[in-house]
Amino acid sequence: MTAPGTRKFWGWGVHGAGPSDEQVAGIQKTVEERFGRSLSRRAPPEIGDLDLPAPRVEPPAALAGLCSSAPDDRAGHHYGKSYRDIVRAYRGEFPHPPDHVARPTSEDEVAALLDWCADAHLTAVPYGGGSSVVGGVETGFDGDHRGVVSIDMERMGAVIEVDRTARAARIQAGAYGPALEDALRPHGLTLRHFPQSFEFSTLGGWIATRGGGHYATLYTHIDDFVASVRAVTPSGLYESRRLPGSGAGPSPDRMMLGSEGILGIVTEAWMRLQDRPTFRAGTSVRFEGEDGFLRGAEAVRAISQSGLFPANCRLLDAAEAQTSGAGDGTYAVLVLGFESADHPLDVWMARAAELCRDAGGIVPEGALATRASRPDSGGGDREGAAGAWRRAFLQAPYVRDALVGVSVIAETFETAIPWDRFPDFHRQVMAATHSAVLRVCGAGQVACRFTHVYPDGAAPYYSVLAPARPGSELEQWAEIKQAAADALIAAGGTITHHHAVGRDHRPWYDMQRPEPFARALRAAKAELDPAAVLNPGVLIDPEPRR
Amino acid sequence: MTAPGTRKFWGWGVHGAGPSDEQVAGIQKTVEERFGRSLSRRAPPEIGDLDLPAPRVEPPAALAGLCSSAPDDRAGHHYGKSYRDIVRAYRGEFPHPPDHVARPTSEDEVAALLDWCADAHLTAVPYGGGSSVVGGVETGFDGDHRGVVSIDMERMGAVIEVDRTARAARIQAGAYGPALEDALRPHGLTLRHFPQSFEFSTLGGWIATRGGGHYATLYTHIDDFVASVRAVTPSGLYESRRLPGSGAGPSPDRMMLGSEGILGIVTEAWMRLQDRPTFRAGTSVRFEGEDGFLRGAEAVRAISQSGLFPANCRLLDAAEAQTSGAGDGTYAVLVLGFESADHPLDVWMARAAELCRDAGGIVPEGALATRASRPDSGGGDREGAAGAWRRAFLQAPYVRDALVGVSVIAETFETAIPWDRFPDFHRQVMAATHSAVLRVCGAGQVACRFTHVYPDGAAPYYSVLAPARPGSELEQWAEIKQAAADALIAAGGTITHHHAVGRDHRPWYDMQRPEPFARALRAAKAELDPAAVLNPGVLIDPEPRR
Repeated sequence: MTAPGTRKFWGWGVHGAGPSDEQVAGIQKTVEERFGRSLSRRAPPEIGDLDLPAPRVEPPAALAGLCSSAPDDRAGHHYGKSYRDIVRAYRGEFPHPPDHVARPTSEDEVAALLDWCADAHLTAVPYGGGSSVVGGVETGFDGDHRGVVSIDMERMGAVIEVDRTARAARIQAGAYGPALEDALRPHGLTLRHFPQSFEFSTLGGWIATRGGGHYATLYTHIDDFVASVRAVTPSGLYESRRLPGSGAGPSPDRMMLGSEGILGIVTEAWMRLQDRPTFRAGTSVRFEGEDGFLRGAEAVRAISQSGLFPANCRLLDAAEAQTSGAGDGTYAVLVLGFESADHPLDVWMARAAELCRDAGGIVPEGALATRASRPDSGGGDREGAAGAWRRAFLQAPYVRDALVGVSVIAETFETAIPWDRFPDFHRQVMAATHSAVLRVCGAGQVACRFTHVYPDGAAPYYSVLAPARPGSELEQWAEIKQAAADALIAAGGTITHHHAVGRDHRPWYDMQRPEPFARALRAAKAELDPAAVLNPGVLIDPEPRR
Repeated sequence: MTAPGTRKFWGWGVHGAGPSDEQVAGIQKTVEERFGRSLSRRAPPEIGDLDLPAPRVEPPAALAGLCSSAPDDRAGHHYGKSYRDIVRAYRGEFPHPPDHVARPTSEDEVAALLDWCADAHLTAVPYGGGSSVVGGVETGFDGDHRGVVSIDMERMGAVIEVDRTARAARIQAGAYGPALEDALRPHGLTLRHFPQSFEFSTLGGWIATRGGGHYATLYTHIDDFVASVRAVTPSGLYESRRLPGSGAGPSPDRMMLGSEGILGIVTEAWMRLQDRPTFRAGTSVRFEGEDGFLRGAEAVRAISQSGLFPANCRLLDAAEAQTSGAGDGTYAVLVLGFESADHPLDVWMARAAELCRDAGGIVPEGALATRASRPDSGGGDREGAAGAWRRAFLQAPYVRDALVGVSVIAETFETAIPWDRFPDFHRQVMAATHSAVLRVCGAGQVACRFTHVYPDGAAPYYSVLAPARPGSELEQWAEIKQAAADALIAAGGTITHHHAVGRDHRPWYDMQRPEPFARALRAAKAELDPAAVLNPGVLIDPEPRR
């Protein structure tokens, strides 16, 4: 149950990873000092303590070999990995687990599972790595259905074909980030898509949710890397032609991208790859004073409009810089980096530094020259400050779980907004969120960084840290989430830049998407999924069964 | 009827533009010599010679002021501007003109026109600049409808709002290329979207057909410039939120992009703009020998995968280079150029030249340094070779019309293909097309250039020039078109990279798009256009009227 390396059913990642007991105690102490509260620590649940309801249905004999009703499988596929999910898991609340977890090994088996669901009046929830933070893989939304099957794609995780000339690969949807990169590395190639969930999310999940990598400009969303897609819908195979570009009708790939499992289950895709970088140049720039973050944003705007395309262009406000160890809390920091597999980057770096200085940034001397780096250094530079940041980035979800264990609300939300509206937008969102945090929790902080930047705007990412009352975490969290989401929708943002909609973002998504688009999507779903088995409640309301 | 500056009803552009009588005689002589045929010249039709059927319906009083049934309006909106369209126009064949040409001035009027069409059982054909070469605006496909209205958006052509900070503008769909650029120029901004149809096509048309500009890398398709879109559908206003990026469900913009007027009529969009370039560097590179074009393609592949992002990277095979005056017919030519509003480009140009030399290209010495250029020099550099090329590029459709007048087939088709498949693909398409040309016409040439390149492939553009038998042009054209399109679909290409599908590309589009996608699109159309008034036969088969 707790063998090191096996997936946790109640939280992020695998047993044995994440902060040690001693480190958790340290985190607890830091938070206690910061907020002047004494916190008590709970242990996560054990699988033997759970009282799961028995499966309501049994698979047909032909599919029984693909299906598991083991308690840790069922509990582990009940939720995604949002703050709310972890709180409920800590409390041992697993009221509506999937009746079965199915692990198909072929498209025919995926189709057979969907047929079973349609025939037996069951809900099917497509499952990649299970890292959704928006209720996208949660079970228990089966309405009048007789049961629910979580369809876990992990056994369809191979890199099938690699094309070195066009730099592309045909990859199965169930491929996890590390395995996918391992398979591409011998070819000198990389998908170069590193979301925070990288270790525990899959290609299919990235496509279904329009995931964002951690690179700042140019190619950031998975959308841009998809050359073609295959998906099994309840009414047939959906396969687009592999093309570098096409103008033939609305893009069939873009209908599947972001469909969050309501139209079909993505089974594979041809993905555009990149050469592994061999040149790197980077620095970090300080923006001091009260308006440091806004002046940093001006520098970032200039850089994003310059045509230089840095790989990293991550602006941290003073609080975020302090939390991540990049600053002392008195200044904003811009982490700036260029990468190339083709050419040294001195000219690029020098011009970007100039744009930072123009906006009042303090650029360290002598740190701008290009360094050649090993092409096999994986997802970004593993040494120095960038390496430390990367490790901290991948550890963050484990730390979040530890904070849940001491009843601290540790939540993030993300959006995007055009540059001209950013200063007002940021003030309004910060004010609304911070005021909700103080009202609800009495103490806490809200910090901001940019995860992605575009020539016409930025994607700000807000982090909330606040001490909760044990037992009231979900109500307190909901009030803060509502205040933040209301503010960002009112001020013109999107409810999600790369976390997806799922079920949790529905109220705000419904305000933002065009009403006729929702109707068109509902009609498309009714055509492709006539029995409405797939992921009910995600993106649109379930169709009545025909 | 033939006042200079007014649009021709039978062909490209305006009266008084294009080659003079003397130049047409010169073109005729050149072609006669090349193909060893004597050609006879016809005059284009006069409006008074046409025998148009009378309008079958009359608009309601409230809409009568928006509608014209003048013969030149009706004849001028019967066809687009394909080779086939011009041949039929020359012959005076206008059997199914629109009963009325409506020119709305507001979204309310667009909605009222669509309501009229639904109520009176009429077909509505959305019309931008009318430059479709795929039957996308053709009338006469009204099935069991009682009449057809061409909805010309030219009176909704304003730039409404300009945002200098985020570099974006809110622009009405009916804005023609030159007017749109004129309105942006005082702000130092440009949409930088220059399709060959630039002078006689509109923003709405570019969005509806996923138009491609003439820049070679990075931002080429209009898709990438759309920050949000508004469209009037028969069942309500479709308006997306203006955002630099979003991961909230499938993109509502991407459903409207490429919808070719079957879901709604685009009325305006927020468009991403760019600063007008102030630095330019360019050269042209020769690739000699039998395999010059394929070695040039290798150079282009290396450049497209380098992260340098040239604005121009146009590879011409020997025949295409000769036709356009860039070569003598014995070598392939790569026209290479960089542009920036931010920085000199010497380093970019030098590295790209190195990649060309690695592939055996001959780069002229001393032509690589960056030149500062006037920011007001419009759509690319108007001086030197690039300027000459640009003028020839915009004149080409006029020349095509002149060739139709002497019964020469002058047709182009375009596609896209991943790099690894390109050499075989190109051989197969060239062989099939050339063999059809010789079989059908006895003489003729097929040439190729790249219009756009991507890290994972190229967009080859093929030009056919062949002497036809007067009176048999359409049958001869159809046989060549079929051979070329069959070959490119069989070899893995797309039936269109930027010309769209319309009605003419349907047989091949139907082979290439996913079948479930077509059903989903049909369901979406039935939801948004329940009376099936919009552009029947484009992209999918008409819905039965409910």
